[in-house]
This record gives sequence, structure tokens and C-alpha cells, in this order.
Amino acid sequence: MLTAYFFHMHPISYQGIADSYSEQALHEFCSKHAINHTPVSTHFFEELFESIQNETGLGFIPIENSTAGTVIQAQDLFLQYSDLTIIGEYILPIQHHLLATPGTDISQIKKVYSHPQALSQCSVFLDTNNMQAISFHDTAGAAKYIQKENNPTIAAIASKRAATLYNLKIISNTIQTNQNNATRFLLTKHKNKTFDFEEGLPAPDKTSIVFSGKDIPAHLYKCLGGFATNNINLLRLESRPHPTKQFDYIFYLDFEGTPQNQSVQNAFAELDYFCDFVHILGVYKAF
Amino acid sequence: MLTAYFFHMHPISYQGIADSYSEQALHEFCSKHAINHTPVSTHFFEELFESIQNETGLGFIPIENSTAGTVIQAQDLFLQYSDLTIIGEYILPIQHHLLATPGTDISQIKKVYSHPQALSQCSVFLDTNNMQAISFHDTAGAAKYIQKENNPTIAAIASKRAATLYNLKIISNTIQTNQNNATRFLLTKHKNKTFDFEEGLPAPDKTSIVFSGKDIPAHLYKCLGGFATNNINLLRLESRPHPTKQFDYIFYLDFEGTPQNQSVQNAFAELDYFCDFVHILGVYKAF
Repeated sequence: MLTAYFFHMHPISYQGIADSYSEQALHEFCSKHAINHTPVSTHFFEELFESIQNETGLGFIPIENSTAGTVIQAQDLFLQYSDLTIIGEYILPIQHHLLATPGTDISQIKKVYSHPQALSQCSVFLDTNNMQAISFHDTAGAAKYIQKENNPTIAAIASKRAATLYNLKIISNTIQTNQNNATRFLLTKHKNKTFDFEEGLPAPDKTSIVFSGKDIPAHLYKCLGGFATNNINLLRLESRPHPTKQFDYIFYLDFEGTPQNQSVQNAFAELDYFCDFVHILGVYKAF
Repeated sequence: MLTAYFFHMHPISYQGIADSYSEQALHEFCSKHAINHTPVSTHFFEELFESIQNETGLGFIPIENSTAGTVIQAQDLFLQYSDLTIIGEYILPIQHHLLATPGTDISQIKKVYSHPQALSQCSVFLDTNNMQAISFHDTAGAAKYIQKENNPTIAAIASKRAATLYNLKIISNTIQTNQNNATRFLLTKHKNKTFDFEEGLPAPDKTSIVFSGKDIPAHLYKCLGGFATNNINLLRLESRPHPTKQFDYIFYLDFEGTPQNQSVQNAFAELDYFCDFVHILGVYKAF
């Protein structure tokens, strides 16, 4: 007798092309949590969020790099796409290399193509070597472009895996300024959809929110007060320009604990009192 | 009898080329405060800080845009160049336009060159029109490049002034996502130098600092406590990745008042107690 097991194959949107750091991180996350998935490539962050909202219902979003800081385009889109909710987190160590066509000498290279975050993470190397940084949608795409152009005056910043795939030579390895370089990704879903793998995910222990304080003295201090007095450990606070008020700010906050904890409920009650708006971006297991 | 007045001409470093937004802001600031100056152009932020430190002793640095947020490369360099101190502030409203060679139709444009901040501020326009963003050192430099290339598939994002100077057509005007768009600049000097115009600057009423909290619970809340209880108005709080501890943060803080005020001295005493390090970046007149 044949027993058929049906595992759903989940399309998951990400930004970049096959063999980018994002796709690599997505694969690692999914194999860790036994999620059957098909990666769905998008070009821009806008397109990524649109795809999660209206097509796949699932996406994998880079949110922060330990050297370059917040991926601000992605961070800001969380405010616009308020139907999305974060359900998982993954941290990928990043090693950037300078790649060019075989036979190239470092002294020939004038222009370097890569994702703006990768360029930023390698800015000291580029400045020192007097190389011009040119933005590309993604690191692997830049490597593919270098292969196609076959021109010794240009190079890409990308992964070792991209070097192998596109038959490029590693001209200089581990060129990022900070050797302790990692990117944090968030698995995000449409809040009205449910997926079979969700019950297999580990129990949440971390919450991400965004809030805007009322126009009162010391509003940020007051907003943080409920967290401090309820012994809630803050993991990250990021200020971003207010969407409408010039040189005013909204705050993205990650903290340990979930809204199921009484302490978090107490902090939220205080937070609500001092805020114009508070929105929960997700409750998930910290990496 | 002839009385000779000697006014010093001050070289002031900035990032970009003549007719960039930065140089425009520098001119406006200097004419407002009657500072005789010669603008000294640099290509990269590293070069700008190096030039202030070792050559001119004076620089004009873009630190924050009301839409795109902190200019993180510039912000981070303030930590490395701790001999520099901020002595003035200026806010320039920014209007971005899409510029191409005369006769170009918008449908022909595939690639758009500009400074990464300008590209970020116009990302909705670029995504909607399916145009590829390519980083350039500065907006005016991108306009100059478009004139030189004379190719209808490429365009620049730059100012109206750049369109006039480089004989380009405004294909689409005011294309930034947020119409309420402005950039804040900081006049910065080497702390061991004194300039004749300094005594003519208005009395300071604002302070910028950077700090790193001790590894204790609720350290950020505790660091802000002295400011809240001494009625000091916080103007901006920006977290940046800690230079050595992964996914830990340092904080840049701007507030109303100066270390001459007793209230600020009280807040500083508390802040010192909860911090690993505190550094004053400057005391100056808010715009």
C-alpha cells in the first residue's frame, strides 16, 4: 500500500537573484526549520513587499547589518505594509570579496559594482584603492554583470559562491571594513494567511513594534519607562524620519518577551498612554 | 589716510563639486553669517573629514535628510575624527528634478545617476518608472556626466541650478517622494583652531553628543533619565551599530541647551554614571 504524504511547497519572496546573500540566508533558514519552499526573486524592496502582500503571502527581508546598520528602505516599508507580520528571524555572517574576470590585476580596476549596503560595508577598501562605487540591485547580479562584460577595469563585490558560479577570480578577499559582519533577516507573512509550517516554528520570545510618541516633553523617555520598570530587555531602538512631520521621528523597537507576558502587557499600557500610535510588527523566536 | 581692513578668507571643505546642494548650502550659510570663504571640494566623506582634520580646519557636513534619515557615513566618521567639533548648523530645502539632454522623452530613460541619498529620496518615482538607480559621488557631478555622455537612455537627479549649468532639460520636476524634503548641514572645525568669524556666530543653544551605555539593564532608559528629569528637550536620537560589539549600539543625541546650563551639567553627571563613554560632538546655535 502506498502512503502519500503531501508537503506544501511554499513560494517565499526575497529581494535579489538566485545565489545572492538573501537567497542563501533563505535556504539556510528553511532547511533549519524544515520548510519546503520555492524562492521567488524580486528586484526592488517595493516589489518584494508588494509580492508578499498580494502574491506569495510570505517573504524574507534583510532588516539590519551589523556594520552598515538598518536597511532603511525595508524598515520604512514595514510602516506602509501594515498587513504583514514577522514570524521568524535569521542571522547570516557576511564575507565580501572583490571579484573580477580571471587575469585581472587589482591595479586595473576603476569601477566596482555591488548592492549599496555591500559598497557601504567595503567603503574603506574602495576609498583606499581609489575605486568608484556603482550601485547594483544585488551582489550576485553585479558578479553576473562582470562576467558578461569581460572588462578588466570593472569588478564586483559579492560572495565566494558568486565567484564560483560566474567563473570570476577573487582579487581580494574579506574586504569589508568590519570583519565581524552579519545581516539579520526577517521571515514575514500576510497576517490573514496561515501556513502549515508555522506550528513547527519555535515558541516566540521576541517582539518588534513601531511607535510615535505624543507631542509632550520627554516623550521617548516616558515611552521607554514601562519597559524599564517591568524589566523588559530592549534589543534595538531605531529612529526614522516621521512620514509627515519634518525632523520629527518614529521609533522601531525590538524587545525580549511577547504580548502574552504580563510584564509586556503592563509596558504596552504605559506606552499607549504616551503615544499617538503603536503597531506590533511581529512576535517571533529570536535567532 | 587709508585704513586697511584685513578679512581672512577661510578655506572650508565640503563633499561634492561646485553647484552641488552641499556647496549651495555652504554659500547660503556663509552669506547669512558674513563668513568670507573659499569652498574646497572633496570626493568622499573620508576625504572630507581628512581635509578638515589636516588641511583646512573647517568643513561643512551633511548629517541628516528629513526623508532619507541620517547620512550614516558622515555620522560614523564623527566618532573616528574626535578632534572635530560642530560650531554651526544650516537646513537647506531640497528639490530633486530628473534631468536629461534636450529632446529626451521620459520613456527612453533606463538608467538614472545621482548621489545615493537623492536616489533613495526619489525611489518611488524610479521604481514606478522602472528606472535603474546608479550611484554617483554627487548630484551635480551626475548632471555633468549626463551632459558629457549625450545619451537619451540616461538621466540624472539633481537641482534646477545643475540643469541650467549643464544645459539639461527638466524631464520631470520635484520627483522626491516626500515634498517636505530638507537636509541639515553642520559647520565643523578642528578643536585646536580658532577663526576670526567665530565670535560673530550667534550664541549656542544646542548640543550634540555620542554615548555608549554600560552593559546594565535598561541602560538607554537610564541614560535618558537625567535629561527627562532636568526638563531638557531631546531633538534627535540616532542608534548606530557599535564599532566592535555585534548588534550592540551607540547613540547620537541632540538636545536643547548647552553644558553651561546647570540642568545640562546635572544630566551629564547622570549620563556619565550609566555610560562607558560620552563625547561632546559640538555646542552650537540651532538653525
